[in-house]
Amino acid sequence: MSEKKRRAGASAAGAASSSKKPRASSAASYAESLRSKLRPDASILATLRSLASASASKSKAAARSLADHDPCADPASSYIVVADQDSTSVTSRINRLVLAAARSILSGRGFSFAVPSRAASNQVYLPDLDRIVLVRRESARPFANVATARKATITARVLSLVHAVLGRGIHVTKRDLFYTDVKLFGDQTQSDAVLDDVSCMLGCTRSSLHVVASEKGVVVGRLVFADDGDRIDCTRMGVGGKAIPPNVDRVSGIESDALFILLVEKDAAFMRLAEDRFYNRFPCIILTAKGQPDVATRLFLRRLKVELKLPVLALVDSDPYGLKILSVYMCGSKNMSYDSANLTTPDIKWLGVRPSDLDKYRVPEQCRLPMTDHDIKVGKELLEEDFVKQNEGWVKELETMLRTKQKAEIQALSSFGFQYLTEVYLPLKLQEQDWI
Amino acid sequence: MSEKKRRAGASAAGAASSSKKPRASSAASYAESLRSKLRPDASILATLRSLASASASKSKAAARSLADHDPCADPASSYIVVADQDSTSVTSRINRLVLAAARSILSGRGFSFAVPSRAASNQVYLPDLDRIVLVRRESARPFANVATARKATITARVLSLVHAVLGRGIHVTKRDLFYTDVKLFGDQTQSDAVLDDVSCMLGCTRSSLHVVASEKGVVVGRLVFADDGDRIDCTRMGVGGKAIPPNVDRVSGIESDALFILLVEKDAAFMRLAEDRFYNRFPCIILTAKGQPDVATRLFLRRLKVELKLPVLALVDSDPYGLKILSVYMCGSKNMSYDSANLTTPDIKWLGVRPSDLDKYRVPEQCRLPMTDHDIKVGKELLEEDFVKQNEGWVKELETMLRTKQKAEIQALSSFGFQYLTEVYLPLKLQEQDWI
Repeated sequence: MSEKKRRAGASAAGAASSSKKPRASSAASYAESLRSKLRPDASILATLRSLASASASKSKAAARSLADHDPCADPASSYIVVADQDSTSVTSRINRLVLAAARSILSGRGFSFAVPSRAASNQVYLPDLDRIVLVRRESARPFANVATARKATITARVLSLVHAVLGRGIHVTKRDLFYTDVKLFGDQTQSDAVLDDVSCMLGCTRSSLHVVASEKGVVVGRLVFADDGDRIDCTRMGVGGKAIPPNVDRVSGIESDALFILLVEKDAAFMRLAEDRFYNRFPCIILTAKGQPDVATRLFLRRLKVELKLPVLALVDSDPYGLKILSVYMCGSKNMSYDSANLTTPDIKWLGVRPSDLDKYRVPEQCRLPMTDHDIKVGKELLEEDFVKQNEGWVKELETMLRTKQKAEIQALSSFGFQYLTEVYLPLKLQEQDWI
Repeated sequence: MSEKKRRAGASAAGAASSSKKPRASSAASYAESLRSKLRPDASILATLRSLASASASKSKAAARSLADHDPCADPASSYIVVADQDSTSVTSRINRLVLAAARSILSGRGFSFAVPSRAASNQVYLPDLDRIVLVRRESARPFANVATARKATITARVLSLVHAVLGRGIHVTKRDLFYTDVKLFGDQTQSDAVLDDVSCMLGCTRSSLHVVASEKGVVVGRLVFADDGDRIDCTRMGVGGKAIPPNVDRVSGIESDALFILLVEKDAAFMRLAEDRFYNRFPCIILTAKGQPDVATRLFLRRLKVELKLPVLALVDSDPYGLKILSVYMCGSKNMSYDSANLTTPDIKWLGVRPSDLDKYRVPEQCRLPMTDHDIKVGKELLEEDFVKQNEGWVKELETMLRTKQKAEIQALSSFGFQYLTEVYLPLKLQEQDWI
């Protein structure tokens, strides 16, 4: 009855629309023809195992190169990369800073903070680290100066608040911090800006200061970890998944038998993958930030990548924003550059949906969308970005997008059936190692 | 050192700002004076237990009154309240509809759908049910009519797609549905609108059709449930909490020893409560939709309320939007009115932050914000809404807000200390039974 009804619907649709071709059936038969190309799962899994082991050995090499560049060890280093620090270390850094101020006051010279510049002109992309970092350039913020007295006071206050938060072993939001002294801070942009200053002064990430952003991300799949001591088994998180904790430093005991991490742009695709328990067929960890990645999700992905040394494959829309989202995961966003080393996951593979997929997988014309002028502008800007330029495959894909002036969402694959994504498209992509 | 530094910071701030009063210390001592008013937890728990048992007996009464009004039982009833139905029931409703169409075609009369009107003029608030519902008024959608042929076709197609989704036992998004036949649907507003029509035609909620919205909500606390068969213990979900599943029909086996449900507007407050494990001190279930409530969170809250018969206490910002969010949970939003019976949780108590709290709990002037003209406009509109008018306490609070022209966020309570919310404000509110 369902099939009969579907065909009745399709022919009725055919009569109503101007289409000549029997639309639905050709899409279904095309999906079937692709399905027949799929090799047994064991063969695809062998492919993924070699990818995973290659990623693990590559990670070791990357870890070495990062150690060579550790900037925190050397204050005379020419650039600043802030790093995760534990509470004890941050507290003693604050203590040292305040002790120095006290000595300075006792010696009759008043006190002053040395604040690194976070200006855009001070940001630089380091190809060997594949990250945006800050050039080391500090300005003095003396208390005994009309121009800086207020900012020096705010800085002292933020240092003291962070000290208190660390002492209590709790986490707070930027908004909480602002409300502790509204009269002094005036508005939240001021306490936020000083918080970033303090982050750079102490050489710690903002999450090391226990000031956290709200989380949006969710995770399911072959992953076990402890969230604040509670053991979380992400294969048993149903369809909803586990909310990614806002404070990644409370995450511990990460274990996994996954072969890769699947990073998904949107929650609709995440839901499909979770409901179909895709990770049971192809052992993987599936996570999404539901659009623009938030800090907590970026920190979490990085932790997974660093500890598990798994390859990361990305499933995003085939449009400039899909690529922009990848760039935020990989290189950080401009206004968080000082924190970039701890927020970025450099080596992400672009699995799909890529502009070349639209023809390769015959995404129907009517499921593609024309790019707007703004899309085209953003796409052209991306072509100029270092992180795109260094990957020839990405440049070609972006050029294809700009030439065809077409974009498509992950959801466009539903035109071949609701489960085409999990049953045909992704398995085939993995089988063909079709990532760049 | 921390304390010394804090005072140093405070006096430095005093010097820099024009404040005469020793700001920080007075706030801290006030918080301490409130803390001393707190009775032992056992006494507060006794209060909550009586609230919980009162809520349970009230729920029974409400359940009876709802049964009296079951509109699905009687198609001749004068209004439409769609209800949750299982897959088998929805499938057989579709079968009946299509069978009727087939018979009509065979008898030479073609086919036509009877579609309930969802127009605003057709929406009515039923005080005894405390919900917005639709007046029963149907229009014919014949296939053999140029004006309605296309819509009738789309309706047939959506019915067939829903039938297929139910047959496969999966869930899809509206966007997925649209992409299965872009050529026919044209744009997503058309398939969305017909989906709502189908919902009303079948007398089922949209979630019964297995078409789900994305979830934003998270939950922690004294709750155990199964998400798609996986047992979730929400006391062991760390600080991040469990993401509320998009498909509430996959939720089963709800168990709880909580005394109340704490509904929180924002994730920052949620994080504070989760990190402090507030539910261990006062057994409760804590949930948030992170702002404007999404359908999944509303469905989930209702399920909890119906199955556990617990009182629901709301913690929202003291501004018109806090109240608007309460209204969405309680009465539904206008554009989902036909689904309102299944999305709403009528009896929610307004715990805080209420306009009268600002003076009562001495929220510092500088932590309050002036209401904008738009805020005032929204506030005045709320005064005209039935759901506000029927609660005298709410009217008074809203009048206080409009008179003082001040609003405040939950975060404003941080001015008394980061943990003031969980350690003083909420325990005191619960002790005093200070909800309306």
